[in-house]
Amino acid sequence: MEQSMILRDFPILDQKVNGKRLVYLDSAATSQKPQQVIEALEKYYREYNSNVHRGVHTLGSLATDAYEGARANVAHFIHAPSESQIVFTRGTTESLNMIAHGYARPRLKPGDEIVITPMEHHSNLIPWQQVAQVTGATLKYIPLQQDGTIALQDVRETVTPKTKIVAMVHVSNVLGTINPVKEVARIAHENGAIMVVDGAQSVPHMPVDVQDLDCDFLAFSGHKMMGPTGIGVLYGKRKVLEEMEPVHFGGEMIETVELFSSTWKGVPWKFEGGTPIIAGAVGLSAAIDYLRAIGMAEVQRMDSEITQYALKRLSQVPDLTIYGPRGERGGLVTFNLAGVHPHDVSTVLDAEGVAIRAGHHCAQPLMRWLDVAATARASFYIYNTKDDIDVLIHALETAKEFFGHAIR
Amino acid sequence: MEQSMILRDFPILDQKVNGKRLVYLDSAATSQKPQQVIEALEKYYREYNSNVHRGVHTLGSLATDAYEGARANVAHFIHAPSESQIVFTRGTTESLNMIAHGYARPRLKPGDEIVITPMEHHSNLIPWQQVAQVTGATLKYIPLQQDGTIALQDVRETVTPKTKIVAMVHVSNVLGTINPVKEVARIAHENGAIMVVDGAQSVPHMPVDVQDLDCDFLAFSGHKMMGPTGIGVLYGKRKVLEEMEPVHFGGEMIETVELFSSTWKGVPWKFEGGTPIIAGAVGLSAAIDYLRAIGMAEVQRMDSEITQYALKRLSQVPDLTIYGPRGERGGLVTFNLAGVHPHDVSTVLDAEGVAIRAGHHCAQPLMRWLDVAATARASFYIYNTKDDIDVLIHALETAKEFFGHAIR
Repeated sequence: MEQSMILRDFPILDQKVNGKRLVYLDSAATSQKPQQVIEALEKYYREYNSNVHRGVHTLGSLATDAYEGARANVAHFIHAPSESQIVFTRGTTESLNMIAHGYARPRLKPGDEIVITPMEHHSNLIPWQQVAQVTGATLKYIPLQQDGTIALQDVRETVTPKTKIVAMVHVSNVLGTINPVKEVARIAHENGAIMVVDGAQSVPHMPVDVQDLDCDFLAFSGHKMMGPTGIGVLYGKRKVLEEMEPVHFGGEMIETVELFSSTWKGVPWKFEGGTPIIAGAVGLSAAIDYLRAIGMAEVQRMDSEITQYALKRLSQVPDLTIYGPRGERGGLVTFNLAGVHPHDVSTVLDAEGVAIRAGHHCAQPLMRWLDVAATARASFYIYNTKDDIDVLIHALETAKEFFGHAIR
Repeated sequence: MEQSMILRDFPILDQKVNGKRLVYLDSAATSQKPQQVIEALEKYYREYNSNVHRGVHTLGSLATDAYEGARANVAHFIHAPSESQIVFTRGTTESLNMIAHGYARPRLKPGDEIVITPMEHHSNLIPWQQVAQVTGATLKYIPLQQDGTIALQDVRETVTPKTKIVAMVHVSNVLGTINPVKEVARIAHENGAIMVVDGAQSVPHMPVDVQDLDCDFLAFSGHKMMGPTGIGVLYGKRKVLEEMEPVHFGGEMIETVELFSSTWKGVPWKFEGGTPIIAGAVGLSAAIDYLRAIGMAEVQRMDSEITQYALKRLSQVPDLTIYGPRGERGGLVTFNLAGVHPHDVSTVLDAEGVAIRAGHHCAQPLMRWLDVAATARASFYIYNTKDDIDVLIHALETAKEFFGHAIR
């Protein structure tokens, strides 16, 4: 794919920040949106905005078709067996909380085990702490190896027949580690556990096939894959979705409501109480169309190329520590400049027009494992160029000069 | 306010449906959006889309300012004492579920009472059924009077010192009844209960002052008040918000995360786990600016004028039953045409370009009280004109002719 054509689709990138060309290296926090997605939202609100399902008027039918069409588009994108296995949520965090509260909490009991890793984002960690506290189940961690990966042998030793749930991030938002979730799912299943995959950083950047991974649940967000904020997805196998309890009670999700009891619709609607996130789903569907037109294998190749270039250039910067594995990895690089707080690095870079993120990246346990309070993170998407990386390197050199006294 | 000026702001209304001018009478399901809201969304995505709070780069600061500015704007709009008492949710349904799961469920015990009315929308009914089932608390109903209103005497007889929660819709989405929630709140407080107000149909249409109402919680949706889909608000008094448990665990809402335990941020952030609904809040804020420029008293006057005209014209249609009180009421009229199913009425009206809603309106217990399976509903907003009502009446006459054989 010709990158100059892609760049034309992102109006936000054609601007100056602090007098410098904007270099946006924060796509792991949220991606920018192509013109096609913005226009899909605009078209929805200008032409056929209406509540869905319940109406029989023309606008209502158009909105329903678009909303349910988005569901089918998502299903096709991740190769789900059926669109009825796609639940729209507000994002990855809500998707994971729905699994924890609606599936795990009513099921787990003392003695049961939940297995996660120390590289989980808080959204795939705190819900499991909560389930463990409420149910008496035990939370266990697969240890991290020195390079920030997990070993299948450690997975085999941690997951036991007592394990009911293995929950794991597909691509770490800090280390860039790509976890072998397909192999882990197999180990989980051999032990009678279900496999939950946090796909927030994988689905936007690589082909993800839920049938190939054989995961039981997959959670991801629209806004990290060129879609709008406030829309996300929970995919589940039919059996676990049918077993899962709803957590949003209200309109849209019911079959019958009596004064003192109610019954629910089938999957997926029982999980979508209240007016759905209609425009969000329409925008996400447009984002999927955009990504599909490029091709997810090509997206992965482009992300990988820019990441490898960034890794190469960053490793040439003196006094700079890079975290995470050096081989194949997700489209981000987390680092620290010796003696300079990452927030200060970020501030100096911002003055040069470069947007990176600094902090604990919602992964405090991992920060402690890395033995740092915080890190800087540059993250990439298909609209980033090698020139962006060169600007980053130059800005880091400026930061080094600025804080030179601190670097020994 | 000159209505022709308002109409110019709603591009969606300037279209034909089935060859006829679109007459949109379904605003109680979702309102249309003015140009100003659509442009605010577009501007966000084109100019400063970024994740909030955690970033220190320029776009992140702009997005954070807009998101937190939206919170302050909402607070001001409903006269909340502080913006920290505004929680962004995906909509009224989620807001009410958060109260039920995060506040009521950990607190209520057998013998406690929850008091609601039979005119509640499912979203303010099923969550309380669930709380009652899980906690052993008793769900009680304030009886409806013949005209579809509630009597304060009945409230006094239903609410007791055992009552912990009184939850009530402010304006009924079926009957149009405006409930005396301020007086009910006083009775609730006299009995030591808290007052939960479902403001989905009131906040968009009239001045609502949470300090004057003295409610403990108020829930409403952005999409019914000219804002985007997928954004809503939960207002709470500081005390109840501090007592309420979070339900979305993840990033953004934490203070510290250890491997086996975590602590939360303060109010309101502990309730907003995960990437917030940033563009949704920005769009809602633009909607509030739009409504404020007109003035909520003027909005109420305009809605009331069109509703009274509709009531007058509809009561002249033979064989048509109107439900709900005849005096002051919300901006909607629910009705049935003798012998014709409301879905059929809606279909014939749609052919005339008129969009109304037909069904149980997420209020099945109320349908049983009215002794109907479903009703038709025309609902209004400030972009509706008397001409729209005349078209509705004409279309209803067409429907009557079409189904004439059924009307005796």
